[in-house]
Amino acid sequence: MKRRDIVKVLGLGVAAAGLAACTEEKKEVADCKPAAPAVAEKPETIEWKMVTTWPKNFPGLGTGANQLADLIGQMSGGRINVKVYGAKELVGALEIFDAVSRGTAEMGHGASYYWKGKSRAAQFFAAVPFGLTAQEMNSWLYHGGGMELWEEVYAEFGLVPGAAGNTGVQMGGWFNREINSVEDLKGLKMRIPGLGGEVLKRAGGTPVLLPGGEIFPSLQSGAIDATEWVGPYNDLAFGLHKAAKYYYYPGWHEPGTTLECFMNKEAFEKLPEDLQIIVRNAIRVANQDMLADFTAKNNRALEQLKSEHGVELRAFPDDVLKQIKTLSDEVVSEEAAKDPMSQKVFESFVTFRDQAIKWHAVSEQAYLNARTL
Amino acid sequence: MKRRDIVKVLGLGVAAAGLAACTEEKKEVADCKPAAPAVAEKPETIEWKMVTTWPKNFPGLGTGANQLADLIGQMSGGRINVKVYGAKELVGALEIFDAVSRGTAEMGHGASYYWKGKSRAAQFFAAVPFGLTAQEMNSWLYHGGGMELWEEVYAEFGLVPGAAGNTGVQMGGWFNREINSVEDLKGLKMRIPGLGGEVLKRAGGTPVLLPGGEIFPSLQSGAIDATEWVGPYNDLAFGLHKAAKYYYYPGWHEPGTTLECFMNKEAFEKLPEDLQIIVRNAIRVANQDMLADFTAKNNRALEQLKSEHGVELRAFPDDVLKQIKTLSDEVVSEEAAKDPMSQKVFESFVTFRDQAIKWHAVSEQAYLNARTL
Repeated sequence: MKRRDIVKVLGLGVAAAGLAACTEEKKEVADCKPAAPAVAEKPETIEWKMVTTWPKNFPGLGTGANQLADLIGQMSGGRINVKVYGAKELVGALEIFDAVSRGTAEMGHGASYYWKGKSRAAQFFAAVPFGLTAQEMNSWLYHGGGMELWEEVYAEFGLVPGAAGNTGVQMGGWFNREINSVEDLKGLKMRIPGLGGEVLKRAGGTPVLLPGGEIFPSLQSGAIDATEWVGPYNDLAFGLHKAAKYYYYPGWHEPGTTLECFMNKEAFEKLPEDLQIIVRNAIRVANQDMLADFTAKNNRALEQLKSEHGVELRAFPDDVLKQIKTLSDEVVSEEAAKDPMSQKVFESFVTFRDQAIKWHAVSEQAYLNARTL
Repeated sequence: MKRRDIVKVLGLGVAAAGLAACTEEKKEVADCKPAAPAVAEKPETIEWKMVTTWPKNFPGLGTGANQLADLIGQMSGGRINVKVYGAKELVGALEIFDAVSRGTAEMGHGASYYWKGKSRAAQFFAAVPFGLTAQEMNSWLYHGGGMELWEEVYAEFGLVPGAAGNTGVQMGGWFNREINSVEDLKGLKMRIPGLGGEVLKRAGGTPVLLPGGEIFPSLQSGAIDATEWVGPYNDLAFGLHKAAKYYYYPGWHEPGTTLECFMNKEAFEKLPEDLQIIVRNAIRVANQDMLADFTAKNNRALEQLKSEHGVELRAFPDDVLKQIKTLSDEVVSEEAAKDPMSQKVFESFVTFRDQAIKWHAVSEQAYLNARTL
């Protein structure tokens, strides 16, 4: 029997493909070994949803979430497809934690200080006034016990956390009055969330919570006296320089804000091991990449703010920073003392910070100062 | 013709497996559609060799190379297996560039300033006196055009480069005499390689090249007066504190040394697309992880050097740093002017540095200073 006949009989499919490499019609079938199938059985694509706290495609944060989703698709050779939803597309910005916890979506992209109401300890994994810089946060998380604590905190909610981006040191904010002493903070109505807001309150100011979209009109109308947002890149996009006179630095309240990508634990654990590793590491890549992106874009935006828009940069006076630091330390340690898990995370964080301050005093800090002598 | 006969004729392999689901012998063959193969064809494991400039398992650098190899294996689900070779195991430390270029190994792990003799421009991708910090290097490479230039430089050698780790700001070195003015550098015999060595020479000192293993005895015997190495973690392991009085900071000559992992271009391009993406991103993960690891380990080692070994930390005086910076700028720009590719890379590097200095003056630098007021 000739190969042609067999193929004809079998008719189709894998067996036919398996024989395709055997082309000599006169060859005896016994000599004609079937080749590997030309098209391997393609496993089904795993469809995941990522809900985010950012408006769709929001520069830096929303685009970072998009890139992470793309990367997971590429690294998995298309075995997972992650569809990204902007805030309100599937659930509201501040509903993503619950949505992923109950499995409505498999992934969430946000910042852990938004979940303070669910777990006070969560705040330490995003930003702490006078806390860790980006480099220090990564070191604490990956090699200083921070990640294990974060996993412990989120496990209670059926979530697996990951650090998924960093803004670097933020700016202190936009002000319409000069800040020459802590007295100038008294009565100041400023948009500043989280622990930073608590510190302002202790200094006699009034922290106001406003979503991104309402900041500009509120500042322009005088409904608020000041606002912080992120840094030159995002602040320029919002046009904040058109509504305030002075741009103060440094952002003592958010010295290296870590963004997060968390996953539904059950969905994550259902993935084959190599995909679990791919997803975890795609998140790590995103973590580094966002900081690199923010650094480059802030470089350029700062130049633009100064040269094109004549923005006046002001440093908070040393005396003000010293007093804010004292207030910050009070606020943060009182917050930590409110429950045992927060206290546990706080102690790990502070121990790491104290060591990092000493090492960076002779490395990063000393070098940056030497370079500008 | 019955199915049994066909199987007998075909004899083996995929076609037989393809028919295995069709068990009713009396069924007509025309009705018997072949099922999907029961066992998917497992692709062969791709075996790669990684040659390194580090002694096998050398802390931080060699272990970083090991972890990268493991990660590639895990992320690829075992489709690539990377075997790591320490210096001299397969080729000598400084032969890895050529070895990977000619395809003796598929990957190399080192630092690009070792290849100055092959391409002067390569030095800019490792460390430049008074150059970029780790955060700035990553930003320049990933979002400031640096990576594209690095690829251009290495393409000539049939190599694909990747940033695969960072030490952060290094220490200035171990000295047995105090450095109170630039005069004190005159006649100083110091182990300091690369562009830093050229700067020392211009200041009247004598740079000496010594491999790691010879540093301690040379310092102890007085054959050299001083040495730099890496930072607290690696320096402590070498016991350098037993052979020198003063530990100077900051490491102006290596402010954020980038390690590299390069690949043979042909071998890399032969990989399926998803594996190319996996390898590239495993290298990115390694890049971030090494810095996090060094930061945590330097934190602890510095404390140990001070509290257990009573090491005296000294800052280079401002005046010395200012003069060294002037000499550094001269040396680096003269070096760049020697060929067009170096000049091209230098211009990109310096443009980025100038912007980063301004942005970091109001962010990272201002914050680090505020925290220690």
